[in-house]
Amino acid sequence: MIRAGIIGATGYAGGELVRLLLGHKDVEIKWYGSRSYIDQAYASVYQNMFRLVEDVCRDDDLAALADQVDVIFTATPQGFLASALNEDILSRAKVVDLSADFRIKDVAVYEKWYGIEHKSPQFLPEAVYGLCEINREAVKGARLVANPGCYPTCSVLSVYPLLKEGLIDPDTLIIDAKSGTSGAGRGAKTANLFCEVNENIKAYGVAGHRHTPEIEEQLSYAALMPVRISFTPHLVPMNRGILVTAYASLKEVRCPDGRDRLPSEEEVRAAYRKYYEKERFVRLLPPGVCPETRWVEGSNFVDVNFKIDPRTKRIIMMGAMDNLVKGAAGQAVQNMNLMFGEAEDEGLRMPPLFP
Amino acid sequence: MIRAGIIGATGYAGGELVRLLLGHKDVEIKWYGSRSYIDQAYASVYQNMFRLVEDVCRDDDLAALADQVDVIFTATPQGFLASALNEDILSRAKVVDLSADFRIKDVAVYEKWYGIEHKSPQFLPEAVYGLCEINREAVKGARLVANPGCYPTCSVLSVYPLLKEGLIDPDTLIIDAKSGTSGAGRGAKTANLFCEVNENIKAYGVAGHRHTPEIEEQLSYAALMPVRISFTPHLVPMNRGILVTAYASLKEVRCPDGRDRLPSEEEVRAAYRKYYEKERFVRLLPPGVCPETRWVEGSNFVDVNFKIDPRTKRIIMMGAMDNLVKGAAGQAVQNMNLMFGEAEDEGLRMPPLFP
Amino acid sequence: MIRAGIIGATGYAGGELVRLLLGHKDVEIKWYGSRSYIDQAYASVYQNMFRLVEDVCRDDDLAALADQVDVIFTATPQGFLASALNEDILSRAKVVDLSADFRIKDVAVYEKWYGIEHKSPQFLPEAVYGLCEINREAVKGARLVANPGCYPTCSVLSVYPLLKEGLIDPDTLIIDAKSGTSGAGRGAKTANLFCEVNENIKAYGVAGHRHTPEIEEQLSYAALMPVRISFTPHLVPMNRGILVTAYASLKEVRCPDGRDRLPSEEEVRAAYRKYYEKERFVRLLPPGVCPETRWVEGSNFVDVNFKIDPRTKRIIMMGAMDNLVKGAAGQAVQNMNLMFGEAEDEGLRMPPLFP
Amino acid sequence: MIRAGIIGATGYAGGELVRLLLGHKDVEIKWYGSRSYIDQAYASVYQNMFRLVEDVCRDDDLAALADQVDVIFTATPQGFLASALNEDILSRAKVVDLSADFRIKDVAVYEKWYGIEHKSPQFLPEAVYGLCEINREAVKGARLVANPGCYPTCSVLSVYPLLKEGLIDPDTLIIDAKSGTSGAGRGAKTANLFCEVNENIKAYGVAGHRHTPEIEEQLSYAALMPVRISFTPHLVPMNRGILVTAYASLKEVRCPDGRDRLPSEEEVRAAYRKYYEKERFVRLLPPGVCPETRWVEGSNFVDVNFKIDPRTKRIIMMGAMDNLVKGAAGQAVQNMNLMFGEAEDEGLRMPPLFP
Repeated sequence: MIRAGIIGATGYAGGELVRLLLGHKDVEIKWYGSRSYIDQAYASVYQNMFRLVEDVCRDDDLAALADQVDVIFTATPQGFLASALNEDILSRAKVVDLSADFRIKDVAVYEKWYGIEHKSPQFLPEAVYGLCEINREAVKGARLVANPGCYPTCSVLSVYPLLKEGLIDPDTLIIDAKSGTSGAGRGAKTANLFCEVNENIKAYGVAGHRHTPEIEEQLSYAALMPVRISFTPHLVPMNRGILVTAYASLKEVRCPDGRDRLPSEEEVRAAYRKYYEKERFVRLLPPGVCPETRWVEGSNFVDVNFKIDPRTKRIIMMGAMDNLVKGAAGQAVQNMNLMFGEAEDEGLRMPPLFP
Repeated sequence: MIRAGIIGATGYAGGELVRLLLGHKDVEIKWYGSRSYIDQAYASVYQNMFRLVEDVCRDDDLAALADQVDVIFTATPQGFLASALNEDILSRAKVVDLSADFRIKDVAVYEKWYGIEHKSPQFLPEAVYGLCEINREAVKGARLVANPGCYPTCSVLSVYPLLKEGLIDPDTLIIDAKSGTSGAGRGAKTANLFCEVNENIKAYGVAGHRHTPEIEEQLSYAALMPVRISFTPHLVPMNRGILVTAYASLKEVRCPDGRDRLPSEEEVRAAYRKYYEKERFVRLLPPGVCPETRWVEGSNFVDVNFKIDPRTKRIIMMGAMDNLVKGAAGQAVQNMNLMFGEAEDEGLRMPPLFP
Repeated sequence: MIRAGIIGATGYAGGELVRLLLGHKDVEIKWYGSRSYIDQAYASVYQNMFRLVEDVCRDDDLAALADQVDVIFTATPQGFLASALNEDILSRAKVVDLSADFRIKDVAVYEKWYGIEHKSPQFLPEAVYGLCEINREAVKGARLVANPGCYPTCSVLSVYPLLKEGLIDPDTLIIDAKSGTSGAGRGAKTANLFCEVNENIKAYGVAGHRHTPEIEEQLSYAALMPVRISFTPHLVPMNRGILVTAYASLKEVRCPDGRDRLPSEEEVRAAYRKYYEKERFVRLLPPGVCPETRWVEGSNFVDVNFKIDPRTKRIIMMGAMDNLVKGAAGQAVQNMNLMFGEAEDEGLRMPPLFP
Repeated sequence: MIRAGIIGATGYAGGELVRLLLGHKDVEIKWYGSRSYIDQAYASVYQNMFRLVEDVCRDDDLAALADQVDVIFTATPQGFLASALNEDILSRAKVVDLSADFRIKDVAVYEKWYGIEHKSPQFLPEAVYGLCEINREAVKGARLVANPGCYPTCSVLSVYPLLKEGLIDPDTLIIDAKSGTSGAGRGAKTANLFCEVNENIKAYGVAGHRHTPEIEEQLSYAALMPVRISFTPHLVPMNRGILVTAYASLKEVRCPDGRDRLPSEEEVRAAYRKYYEKERFVRLLPPGVCPETRWVEGSNFVDVNFKIDPRTKRIIMMGAMDNLVKGAAGQAVQNMNLMFGEAEDEGLRMPPLFP
């Protein structure tokens, strides 16, 4: 039995972790951390857990927690884990961090985009970026996993094979992303009230969203060159789901007769298949079928597909996933499974919920 | 392994059955019946099932189906099963009917409210009304289970203990119910378009909804007298969920000193406890906490609670559940579990999904 | 030109007042009061007003305001106006109060249900309850109008003619109401976040909502006897709209032959017609058509209708309106029109917006 | 008084025309055409118009209609007007066509993208593309106005000044658009049911949407060269609103010292101002403020703004409008106003409705 502790168990990602871990056959949650609700019954905050969770919420004491559990999930604001982590904790418990603290290898980039000082850069080298489909082997041996951001997960998985195979021009990559509102968190802000979000769509963080450098770093590894993208997130009036629509110019292929041509549908499809064919959680949809968030809700799937536009010589790449599952808690569980030698999909086998 | 067939697998209730049965350790779905999509891949209709279901949709051939499966679920329009059922089929496979055909014992009542002739009244006597919490033992031995309607399930469970214990006056019972839109089915009707339902609430079927006699029949068994209610359903702009708000006058209790008094909060609570304390799927909430549909979404739970209003000497009883789970597919699986000796909650243990 | 000032101009009701008054040919808004946004451009808070409103927000100074305007609208928390009002102000400007401070004539009742001391009960006798359809003449001469609550407006108008004509038994009256989320205000509360409200319906304030005594007082005037009701509001995932579903037992009519019978559909309809036939803003729908909130959105209409249920000898009365218009700002403008001799529907002629 | 007839009065755009024309001081609607509801009261289909519209729906007889009205609005399926129009009709009544029949000058392009034969190409030369802000003078003298599509209106207005002023590279233009569901029409299709649209976002018509050539044609006029774009529409779970997020590479400016630099924020802003400063319905938002659909709902405004991204040397242009108003009926009224010498904003002065 893996003993697990959650710091930040009453945020939306933390709540989703509880849901998923309750369905995991080898996990026992020992610690529901929530600074805002200390000593209150967890099920009084997340009433869906009434009679399923008897525990009360506890403080954010990482050191005490490390004594009692095998794995710590931190679903906390940026900066928390970097401030609290030390070798002693890491020597006693593995950590899956759902915040951004250890996702970006370059401290200067982190500090610039997040506007805070990084308090424990010494752990950056060992932290593994937990995008399982790409870094599976490294995750298996990690003590500290940086669970990817929601937008980066969907963005990277949607375009990765094409960058890796050199089918698109990295300098032309534009990612237009749309997210449900749970991604904005459970904090009481006017901007996230029902009446402000409902019947509305807006872009936000234009040309400045913090997930930009995270996406760029991962895509640069794939492209073997620095990648700089336009990334624009949008807020959509729905609870869950992220949809990525990515645009890039296809690189032309030199034919035997010396002429250039676009890669064919089949060639592009083969590139996706090469990387995802054996993946449990990435579904390459049939030709012509667009990913939609409703078809992945509640599950750990990322649905991807693409469309070649010969008129513009561009390709439109699309990805859909549940931001709270594959974009947060589900991927965290997937990482934990890899770290502890569990079946990678243990606790993550539920089909998507529709409608 | 229980071999299962579904007639009407591409409606919302049928789709939910597929979702739940895929997570049931002892069930294999052998037949995805859908007259509208014959020979089309099931996952092309319900894309959430891509790579999870490989089968194509098949016709509604009950006789052929009975040869291949142990249990048949019919999620079909009213009248279908009554027209198609015969002794031969029932002798080979058990049937859980999600339509209304065998819920009402009195043929005349059925024919009046549904406006169609009942084609096989001979099976009405043996059909068991599959409200597991009330008819558990009968369900275990049944060949034919009439799976209760969504509104009746939530309505009956919300008021049952108080009628049974004689705490309320049956003649004063009023049930005001609110349902998400999946209850209206997947048929292409203008009235159910997004723009017609969104940003709207309306009552419908006022003083004439077909679930009225079903609720009345069940409540009459509890009250040991004929119960006649006002029942008003409303359509709410959300996908899933039913909320019942029921009103009744409390019966006063004669005190030792000869004066009458209302039953106390604790006496009412004891009545609920008496019937539901050991129930896995009925959760009596703590005092003062109102049921909300969000807390049961995706699960088989019914959350119930009540509030005594001494000013009016009435009690307000409330119940919330997911209309597609406890109100349809989940209860059907629960019935199947009872009929086949499975653990009653097998396949139904997932916690509610929030948000 | 009527010069108007608004205290609380950045709440939802205040914002709606701005929208309506901008379309009023004889009104000029001179003061946008908002304690939270002092000195900020109003259009930076309500961006829909960009280029339509150039003013900045100002403090809540009633005395200063009374010098500059002819009418003051207070869309403020309970207790504000009662604390700030005095004879000097009232002698200089008329006041339409959208809070509850002057709606209830009995100070003790107000103080019990609102839990605060009433600071200026001396103005209660002169305050006119501004339900125009019922108190039109009194409103015309008023200095201080208590603009009715949203639930009371819809509830009272839905049942008023039947109580007035003695067609229903007041003791049996139950009002089950459903409201969009703008009724909860623009305060930053977790409970009103998009993800908490969306995909959910719940009852709240069960047997204790503050609009209960307000409804009871008005209904008592109609019934000429004390009326005590059950009132249960529900929160619906939509921006605007209130739907009332009210239940009561019909009083039987003695026939010439000595037998009792229920009032007929036509008799009940005649009662509604008697009171509403000439009303611009109350629409009695055709037989069989249920009120729906979508058909009144953005307008000052209240749609009402009813259904007789001979089985239970009850009548179900229904009403739908936009909580921010007829339930708040629209009715306030209607009151102002009456107070200043304007056409009652000036500024209120826009048809409902659908979808 | 302008006498107006509407063909297709029961679609969403037709219904919006009715709403707007009812508020127009110089228009009288003489003909509510709706083939599906002939002889039914219009207000029985659009119940918001109860007591506001007394007429019944009539057939689609253009010739008869031309005798009775001064202007005909056709909110009809593609191909209808092209099949029905003739010189006789045009000589008697002006026509504002909300379909695509006369938007594209090149018949071959129309026939390729719409897949139907154009039955009256002889009227294409005289048809004026009714984007008032750009073709105002031509509209004034037109007999036949092709009312622009919803996506084209928002797309063109969002990028027009920058193409016109040569600030962006037309070959890099990518338009990612998001629309509310009313844009999908009122036809009873499964894909547009509440439960299919709610809690979902998807792209559709990827690299093949019919509005693409319309946008390209208009942008080509602005750029004085053929423009070919990537255009991807998305379906958003809300009733109204279109948001356009457009990406293009900025053209660098040669400095006096021979170096190249990006245009400044102020230079770009000046370009927008040059074209929109005097426009009643295009609002250039303050720096840093993103357009949101909620701020234009119900109004004829288009809100535009932009963000320069020096990292990628791209500019992100954004536009928001109500697809049924400026994207359909509102623009049609604006065109009519111009054609008949009315004030351009007559009937269109209502502020946006929020929330």
